[in-house]
Amino acid sequence: MATGSGIFPQMHPVPGFRLGTACAGIKTPGRKDLVVMELSESTSVAAVFTQNAFCAAPVTVAKQHLQSGAPSYLLINTGNANAGTGEIGLADAQQSCEVLAELKSVTANKILPFSTGVIGEPLPMEKLLGGIPQAVEALNENGWADAAEGILTTDTRPKGASLQFSLEGSTDLLTITGITKGSGMIKPNMATMLGFVATDAQVDPELLHRALHLVANKSFNRITVDSDTSTNDAVVLAATGASGVVIDESNFDQFVANLEIVFIELAQSIIRDGEGASKFVSVVVDSAVDSAEAVKVAYCIAESPLVKTALAASDANWGRILAAVGRAGVENLDVDKVSVSLNQVLIVKQGGRAASYTEQAGEQAMAPEDITIQVSLNRGTAVETVWTTDLTYEYVRINAEYRT
Amino acid sequence: MATGSGIFPQMHPVPGFRLGTACAGIKTPGRKDLVVMELSESTSVAAVFTQNAFCAAPVTVAKQHLQSGAPSYLLINTGNANAGTGEIGLADAQQSCEVLAELKSVTANKILPFSTGVIGEPLPMEKLLGGIPQAVEALNENGWADAAEGILTTDTRPKGASLQFSLEGSTDLLTITGITKGSGMIKPNMATMLGFVATDAQVDPELLHRALHLVANKSFNRITVDSDTSTNDAVVLAATGASGVVIDESNFDQFVANLEIVFIELAQSIIRDGEGASKFVSVVVDSAVDSAEAVKVAYCIAESPLVKTALAASDANWGRILAAVGRAGVENLDVDKVSVSLNQVLIVKQGGRAASYTEQAGEQAMAPEDITIQVSLNRGTAVETVWTTDLTYEYVRINAEYRT
Repeated sequence: MATGSGIFPQMHPVPGFRLGTACAGIKTPGRKDLVVMELSESTSVAAVFTQNAFCAAPVTVAKQHLQSGAPSYLLINTGNANAGTGEIGLADAQQSCEVLAELKSVTANKILPFSTGVIGEPLPMEKLLGGIPQAVEALNENGWADAAEGILTTDTRPKGASLQFSLEGSTDLLTITGITKGSGMIKPNMATMLGFVATDAQVDPELLHRALHLVANKSFNRITVDSDTSTNDAVVLAATGASGVVIDESNFDQFVANLEIVFIELAQSIIRDGEGASKFVSVVVDSAVDSAEAVKVAYCIAESPLVKTALAASDANWGRILAAVGRAGVENLDVDKVSVSLNQVLIVKQGGRAASYTEQAGEQAMAPEDITIQVSLNRGTAVETVWTTDLTYEYVRINAEYRT
Repeated sequence: MATGSGIFPQMHPVPGFRLGTACAGIKTPGRKDLVVMELSESTSVAAVFTQNAFCAAPVTVAKQHLQSGAPSYLLINTGNANAGTGEIGLADAQQSCEVLAELKSVTANKILPFSTGVIGEPLPMEKLLGGIPQAVEALNENGWADAAEGILTTDTRPKGASLQFSLEGSTDLLTITGITKGSGMIKPNMATMLGFVATDAQVDPELLHRALHLVANKSFNRITVDSDTSTNDAVVLAATGASGVVIDESNFDQFVANLEIVFIELAQSIIRDGEGASKFVSVVVDSAVDSAEAVKVAYCIAESPLVKTALAASDANWGRILAAVGRAGVENLDVDKVSVSLNQVLIVKQGGRAASYTEQAGEQAMAPEDITIQVSLNRGTAVETVWTTDLTYEYVRINAEYRT
């Protein structure tokens, strides 16, 4: 199950950024499961990683390698997360970098490794290493669609977004293109499952890092399927500079605004493909005291199993929404000021059922696949949105059966 | 679905405490849904209530009435929570107290009202008030079993616990008897769904309150079905004093130890009857820096949908347990010190799979209905236990269908 059309978009290539995908047989023979990405020499890179203390071996290695400057290659496998694998896992991640490095005559610290898949099993090194030459062979600026498939796990479809735009007062076309994966164990904290985004803008590393943090906080850090932060989350943003268009303080906001469009589309595509999802749910909390408060309330609703099962049943069960707001830990919440709308049908006003509300209106509001739950706290000006799924039988089936 | 035998225990009457149950037809005709409890004049009372900001009207009224001294009657209905009902809800709760007060020639502030059931619908006052005389008529010291049925909602069975014991150096027999209800929207915070416990010990109100807080924190405040704190949670502890045995500082610890036995049994009975439960899960976190840290980690595991679905599948998916430990927000967690056992089979040692572990041993460990997940952080001496359920299709079915 999934929501939305699922049509994979046209992916504009990003000059200076090539992708190659191979079938290494890591978990399933014949499926795309190994991706190499090549970054041209002038490329700036920014990355954010999972905050989970049990971070995977490749995350540890990637963080180390990033300290020695911009990487030349990203090496990504699916089918095995190389997490909970101790010293052997670290050695495996390092060795996979070394093999690619030797092939391309660079040092191993120019490679960032990424893994996703089952936790706690050793990386099948022979298969992984065997696939690297094939992936390198395939390197191509038009490799986005294959790579989008090559990083999937329980996802039911590849996820990409691509945008071309010009900055004000310029006719130069800039491109931002990215792919992402993930549909379970999704509550990124400072990062997503896996996301790789490239642009041909020229952005110095510090500015690029600032941009990444800004947009990650409005996209990947605002989604939840099941409140479980993965051990392997990572987002990489690469700016090849091939367009020659320089991003600086004067046009930074414009650049970020366009970057945010791509990031939100990618993050939402994870939710649309959330495990067992039959609804795409936007939880908007407005008129909060500050952003942190709005996010806290929004997540409390988005993570409530009772709200999520009601959504699965298209049941306008506003009592469960109020109960979630009430337990979110908002200081001195005046419940008599709270209002709630479902797809713009006002259902709770001043803390109780709105006089205008009818069960029939509630049923109609809940019928569509896309649902917006809007909660007004009426005590400030901050607004935040969190995107989530419903909780269905299918979610339980997928997660009770995965691994077996 | 539920776990354990579900056999309702023998309930020792508590002298000075009478219960009467009626079928008022509040939601379903012919089922027990209205309970009156009568407390003899000398009775001390302590109570704790939900921390949910959207607390129900009866909770607000009960708190007010408690301020004017020990109550004489508790009035409990199921079928309707009288929550999210605004001013009308408050008036209804107050009026129901007044009707019982008039019947028994006491003032309305001697009555504490409690409601449980659907949120957001007005209390059917005619039916509720009509049932009061019948419940009063039935008042009896042996009314525990009927009352245990009369407070249920989505529960599949009544829940009670009863204990008789003597204090050291005494032959006087003391009794502690209690009932509880709840199987969904269960993550009590300073209280449970509903719990009513009585003893014939003589305990002054301040000491009784201290005892209640101590034992609630080891029982009802250590369980979660779905991380949703209800709007109506309340626990009442009444000490009638009918035994003449006085509890003071000298025997307080003994009294609390026995009280804790009853409270833990009641709290566990909620988890055994948790919505859709096929497993009874004890999450034990030991060698934590402090109790708060142990509780935080235990809840993070107990509330993880991925851990809970793995439990439903009897899958020893320790990677999901590690991931939950890793995102619990423990400061400076040394993951290489963490170990995990499932029903005493060591599965993770020093942060990775234990050398001795086999998939077969994991399968055997996960087969029983009762599962203990033990996590050792190896950084302190604090130990805490949280009890929870697995997450099954049945949970989704119940909560997607309830209300329709």
